[in-house]
Parts: sequence; structure tokens; C-alpha cells
Amino acid sequence: MGINQGEHAGVNQCIKPVTTKRDGELYIGGCNLKYLAERFKTPLYVIDESTLREVCREYKNAFSGYKNIKMTYASKALCNTAISKILVDEGFGFDTVSEGEFYTVYKSGADMSNVTFNGNNKSVNEIVSALEFGVGRFSVDNFYELDILNKEAVKKNKIADVLIRFTPGIECHTHDYIKTGQTDSKFGFDKIQLDEVVELILNQYKNINIKGLHAHIGSQIFELQSYADEIDILIKTLSELNNKYNLVMDELNIGGGLGVKYTEKDHPPSIADFGKVVIESVKVSSQKYGINPPIIYIEPGRSIISTAGVTLYTIGSMKQVPNGRKYITVDGGMADNPRPSMYHAEYYAEIADDINSKETECVTIAGRYCESGDILIENLELPSPKSGDILCVYNTGAYNYSMASNYNRVQKPAMLLVNNSQSDIIVNRETLDDLIRADLIPDRLRR
Amino acid sequence: MGINQGEHAGVNQCIKPVTTKRDGELYIGGCNLKYLAERFKTPLYVIDESTLREVCREYKNAFSGYKNIKMTYASKALCNTAISKILVDEGFGFDTVSEGEFYTVYKSGADMSNVTFNGNNKSVNEIVSALEFGVGRFSVDNFYELDILNKEAVKKNKIADVLIRFTPGIECHTHDYIKTGQTDSKFGFDKIQLDEVVELILNQYKNINIKGLHAHIGSQIFELQSYADEIDILIKTLSELNNKYNLVMDELNIGGGLGVKYTEKDHPPSIADFGKVVIESVKVSSQKYGINPPIIYIEPGRSIISTAGVTLYTIGSMKQVPNGRKYITVDGGMADNPRPSMYHAEYYAEIADDINSKETECVTIAGRYCESGDILIENLELPSPKSGDILCVYNTGAYNYSMASNYNRVQKPAMLLVNNSQSDIIVNRETLDDLIRADLIPDRLRR
Repeated sequence: MGINQGEHAGVNQCIKPVTTKRDGELYIGGCNLKYLAERFKTPLYVIDESTLREVCREYKNAFSGYKNIKMTYASKALCNTAISKILVDEGFGFDTVSEGEFYTVYKSGADMSNVTFNGNNKSVNEIVSALEFGVGRFSVDNFYELDILNKEAVKKNKIADVLIRFTPGIECHTHDYIKTGQTDSKFGFDKIQLDEVVELILNQYKNINIKGLHAHIGSQIFELQSYADEIDILIKTLSELNNKYNLVMDELNIGGGLGVKYTEKDHPPSIADFGKVVIESVKVSSQKYGINPPIIYIEPGRSIISTAGVTLYTIGSMKQVPNGRKYITVDGGMADNPRPSMYHAEYYAEIADDINSKETECVTIAGRYCESGDILIENLELPSPKSGDILCVYNTGAYNYSMASNYNRVQKPAMLLVNNSQSDIIVNRETLDDLIRADLIPDRLRR
Repeated sequence: MGINQGEHAGVNQCIKPVTTKRDGELYIGGCNLKYLAERFKTPLYVIDESTLREVCREYKNAFSGYKNIKMTYASKALCNTAISKILVDEGFGFDTVSEGEFYTVYKSGADMSNVTFNGNNKSVNEIVSALEFGVGRFSVDNFYELDILNKEAVKKNKIADVLIRFTPGIECHTHDYIKTGQTDSKFGFDKIQLDEVVELILNQYKNINIKGLHAHIGSQIFELQSYADEIDILIKTLSELNNKYNLVMDELNIGGGLGVKYTEKDHPPSIADFGKVVIESVKVSSQKYGINPPIIYIEPGRSIISTAGVTLYTIGSMKQVPNGRKYITVDGGMADNPRPSMYHAEYYAEIADDINSKETECVTIAGRYCESGDILIENLELPSPKSGDILCVYNTGAYNYSMASNYNRVQKPAMLLVNNSQSDIIVNRETLDDLIRADLIPDRLRR
């Protein structure tokens, strides 16, 4: 466990689930990973319930000093009914970005008033559906959406409570793809459009009720100062708009984005420190701009679920390139974890089998997909890996299953929830017939 | 139609399906795209049957002068039962890379002896299944696979016909991710291991029958000289091994990889020229190394299906960044076409609606997914795009549906086959309940 930061590190500051133990073989949630792999086959997503609940507690503790906090899990990180049920139990709401997401959290028993609906291009059908499901807040993103939302709310004789999403102009040091707060973004209104938006709503959109503002500055963020800067802009803007239009907006959604520790190179701040900075910034900026501290929404996704998840693979073929690197191939890859191909994301992994060798060798973990770019980990030190060994890749809870494809016509893996030596399937493995379920051959081709 | 290269360009040298026509609105396969979008909803994959059959004819014509040709469609480009059925009709075999793929082509009526099984990490289950389905050729990739294949063939009292895959050491000018022929590759044996492989098979693996060699040098290849170089190495190697071990190997699989024209920047050679170069190279090198011209397998994927496919989207929100770019957002994006995010791939698109304006503006086509990197096309000139317009993105037949995910918990699109003004669903659109079909909530979480 040397690779974790010790007992006092927060969950998002650890590479491994909190229950990870090696007793000869590797255990998570009291379950022997080698046994799980044998029984449930690989590749296999495994979620450690203790780690998930621990991180929820960390968030609740971090914000216990601030009464007006609304914690909504960004379900795009990993969305299925069982994970949603646990977050409901832990008192979280949900930040959803599609009908599929709010439908899933509804099926898991979420109170829909604690669900927000976010996105840069909500369809008419999704807006209608969100009104019918009674989603609590719309983060309105653009003029097109405002118009549709008001029309549909009028038809249903409902009032839609909205936060206005805008780009605060913050640049975070993060990957280009997951940087969203800068001005040149597809998301949200520009700051200079806010007057127009407010006037439009007040004058024309009678079924839209402005509750506050929303911004999101990026993902996998390590610098807490970014949040302080963002909060200052949000509160300043809220105060100005309240004054100018005699509004009583009292809600701010500061988005998500807190980072996690994928490898030893990553040094994310703790959730506790994130809470301190947010609470302090809200207090300072509220005083500075003369408003009561508003209701604060946060939208953690990755930092909630990433560390709780690991992926188990079976090592198959191995290839030593003469005078080159050694490839260790697993039975999954870019279809169950597209992040290395898409973002050059790095992961850490260990052999789940009993390790007899103390010597390690430097290997490249390749996937099974027919594409040279399907490499999961480069330059990993492993103690004499053998075909048949189980490889445990850490920190795969977020954006692995949620981005999984059927590339190469391979079935998506199963997902297990482990806790207290118990393991339960929470997503069934796809079958061969699932792959052709949607296929149809037109009659004229059969003649 | 100015953007195509005129009547005499090959299908893979055109950006659009061969039946594309504008008569006010846009038509493909005699079908009005605006009407298809309304009836079948968007996003919608549309495959033009004429274009697909035309490209099959081009391949057959290109190789009509070479008797010993085996054309196998690389089904990882797009695999479903209807597309496979058309390729069966056109006399193609299949290059498959998973049980899911050979199961699908089996369901479409393929003669399994014309199916090859390729891949750098075939699982034991897949190898067993391939033997049971009677897959015609295994492209054996590594020692691990050889061992399993022989064991399982012995158990079933079958002889497995194999081609030995190796890396010929060819570097093509293509994207790093899809470059596979170089020496540092996860695929295939190294050239210097071939003696060991042949000796192993001859001495120990009695149920493995060596038919020939296999190589694959990359994808989206524009330089035909690469194929000539590859063929020379393959034939030289075949000749040397035949002589040294008194073998009668007479099959060479030269792989696939011929490029297509995504945008005006791309200038792929024609299929006819590809055929000429392959036939001529085989003739020249066979003479040079003193063997009879072997049976040649080719594995075209992208060049078979890419141009036949388009994706229809509905334009939703639009955002003009003050002093910045204009975003036009569609109702799909990186989950139905991950190629722009993953490979910085470029596409061309047009408005399917009647176009009244002659003036165009430069826009960025953004997707609906909650990620800044979800941008489909940058700097596209469009004539006054409006919300509600249908956008037709060209050349999406390959590696779009096959790489599609449910990111953001969005249902995968439907796929239509159009021909002679007729449209048939060949892949049903996913439903909300499809999204939660595999989900389970353990009883203990319900208490």
C-alpha cells in the first residue's frame, strides 16, 4: 500500500480503493480478485462500495460547515442504477446530461427535485421529458434552449427553475479536451450576453424562473485557486444582476472537476481542502459584493467514483520486440477504457496473483483491439507477468464504462459491486446475441 | 457534385455516395434526407447500397486479371448482419477480429471457409468458437496463440489452417495509431522469429497447417509504393521459408488499409490503381524469387464502406462567441463518431435542406456531449445554417457505428439502408430501456 499517501490521504489522493489489501493475492472489498476474475470472467469492472461511501462522507464532512450546500453527482462519470442507488442513500442529488441519465437515476429512486439537467444541446424531446420527470433545475445553456424550454413549460403549465450557465473565462491547467471554462467554449452563454438573457426571461419567458448561475471550469483540476477565482466571478455577477434587475437569485452552481490520482505523478488536493477553499471563497466574495452567502451546488463526478473502480483483465499473449519493448496483452483495451487512446491518460496496475518474484521488468500493456493505438499503459514495472495472470488496473471507475464501446464487435464487460467479502453483479456482461439484437436484414436482401 | 472528382473517379476518391443529388433538398439513394430525418429521427446513420455495391465491383474489376485473389471485407470497419449479407452477395469473404464479428457474419449467411480470424490476443474461448464455426484461416499472431490453437484443435480432432502474421518493417505515412507494419508493434511475430515459428509448428503442432504469411501495414494509406514494398518482403520471405523447410505455402495476406477521401485535402489512389500495383508487384516479385504467384488475400475495410455512409444530424443550438467562432451544435457527436476526438479526423458536411442563401459562413460543428473536445468539424463553410436544419456529414460509413459508445447515457442511433428510393432500417435505434437493460440493483441495497 506504499503507493497510497498513507492513512490520512483523502480517497481522491489515493491510487487504489481504500480496502485494497495484498495477502499473497490481491483483495478489494474483502474479495479475492483472482477468484472474482475466475468466477465472473474478464474484463471485469469492479466497484468498491466502501471507497465510494468513504468519498461521499469526505464530501459531506468537507461541507458540513456550510448549510446551503447541494451535492449533485455528475453521473456522466459512471451511470447505472446500482451506483445511483448508493448515491441516493448517501444523500446526493444528480447532475445529468441526457434523458438516459435522468431516466436511470429516476429508476434508482432519486428524488427528481434534486436532479439538474445540463448540456449544450438538449433536444426538444429531452426538455419535454425533463419537465415530465420533474427535474429540479435546468442549467440553461443557450438562447435556443430557453425558447424551447419556455414553450414546453407553457404547454404543460409548469414553471421551469433555471440556473443560467455562462463561461466565466477561467483557464485551468488541464487537458485541452476537458477544459470548459474558457471563453471560446461550446458551453453556456458568454458573460456579456447575461443582460440580454435576464431581460429576455423577465420580459418574454413567463414560465422560466431564474434561480441563479452556473459555471464549470474543467475536469481533473489540481489547482484550488481556480475555484476561488471562479467563485469570485460568479458571486460578483450574481450580485450585479440581482441589483440591476431587482432579482433574488440565491443559487450558484460552481460545477465539478476536482482531480484524482491516477499515477504517482498526480497530486490532487484533498476533498477537505477543496471544501475549505470553496466555503472560504464564498464567504469572502459574498462579503466583498454584499450578498448573503448563496446556496452552492457542486457537481463532483470523477472524484466520487474513479478511485472506487478497478478493471480486471487476464493477461494473454506477450511479445518481446527484439531489441525493443515487451508487450503484455490483456483481454480488453480501448473499447472498455478509451481514455489512454483519447487523452493519453495514464494508469497504474498490479498483478492480482501471488507474486513470488521481487524483480520487476518494464512492460507495455497492450489491449486486444485491432489497432496499434490500443495501448493501456506504457512503461509499467511488473514482477514477472505470465499469461493467465490477472491484471488489476486502478482508478477506472470514471469514464471507462460510461465511454465504453463495442469496437471490434466485442461484448461490454460486466460490473461488480464488492463490499464486506460480498460481490454482486450490477451490470450484466453483454452476450453474443446482445451484439446482434438491434440488427435487421431487409426482406429484399434475403431474396 | 463539384466536390467529387468527376464521373471517372473511383468511389474511394469521392467524398459523397455515388447517388448523392441535390434537387433543392439533398437526396441519397433516391431518398430525400430531410424526409428520412423526420421519419426515422436523428442522429441517423444512412448507408447507400449503390455506393457499397459499386465499390465491390471496383475491387472485383481491379483484380479480374488475377485468378488467385481472395477478397475479405475487414468487418471491424462496420459490422452488422445486413451489411455482411450484401458483402456475401457480392462474393466477399470476411476478415474478422472477434467472436462477435464472426458470429455476426455467420448470422448473415457467410460461408465460414471464407472467413479469417485475426487479432493480437484471441482468447481461448474465441479460438474454440472459431474452430467450431469452421473459420477458414487463423492469422496466428504470437506463440501463446499457437499453443492454444494447437491444443484446442487436437481436442476437436481438427486441422487449423493458418497464415503466420509478422511485421514486415514497413513504415507508412499515416496516423501513429493506425500504423501497424513497423517493427515496434503489438501485432504479429518479428521477422527474425519466423524460423522458430515454422520449426515449432512442423515439430510440435501437428494440428496446425501452415498455408502462408500475413502482414498489415496500416490504415488510410495513400502511397501504393508501400504495398509494392510489402509484397516484395512477403514473397521473398515465403520463398525463403518454402525452400528452407521444404514447405508448399502458397497464400499471402497483404492486409488492407487503402485510404478514402474524407475532405478535399485527401488524395487516395483509386482501387483500380491499387489492383494494378498489387498484381504487378506480385508478378515481379514472384519472378524475382522464383515462385509461382501465390493466392493473394486482401482485407479492405474503410475503402469498402466509408464512402457509402453518411450521418444525419439535426442542428440545435448555435453560439456566436463574441469576437470568436460560431458554434453550430448537432444532436450527436463523439459517441456516434469518436474519430475527430480520437484521431483529429476531418469530415465534410452539407445542409440537407433547400439552400436559399449563396453566402456561406465559417462555423464549428459541435456535438451534444458534455465535453469540450466533442467537436465534429472545425472551419466548415455553410450557407446560413439554422436550428432545425438537417446536417449531412459525409464518409462516416467506417469506424463510426463500429466505435460508437453510449457516452452521456445516450442511445445509439439507428442505421438505414437506402436504395432506389427505398429505405430500410438495418439497425434499430436504442431505447431508454435498452440503456438500463443490463443494470441490476442488489437486494441488499434495496433494504
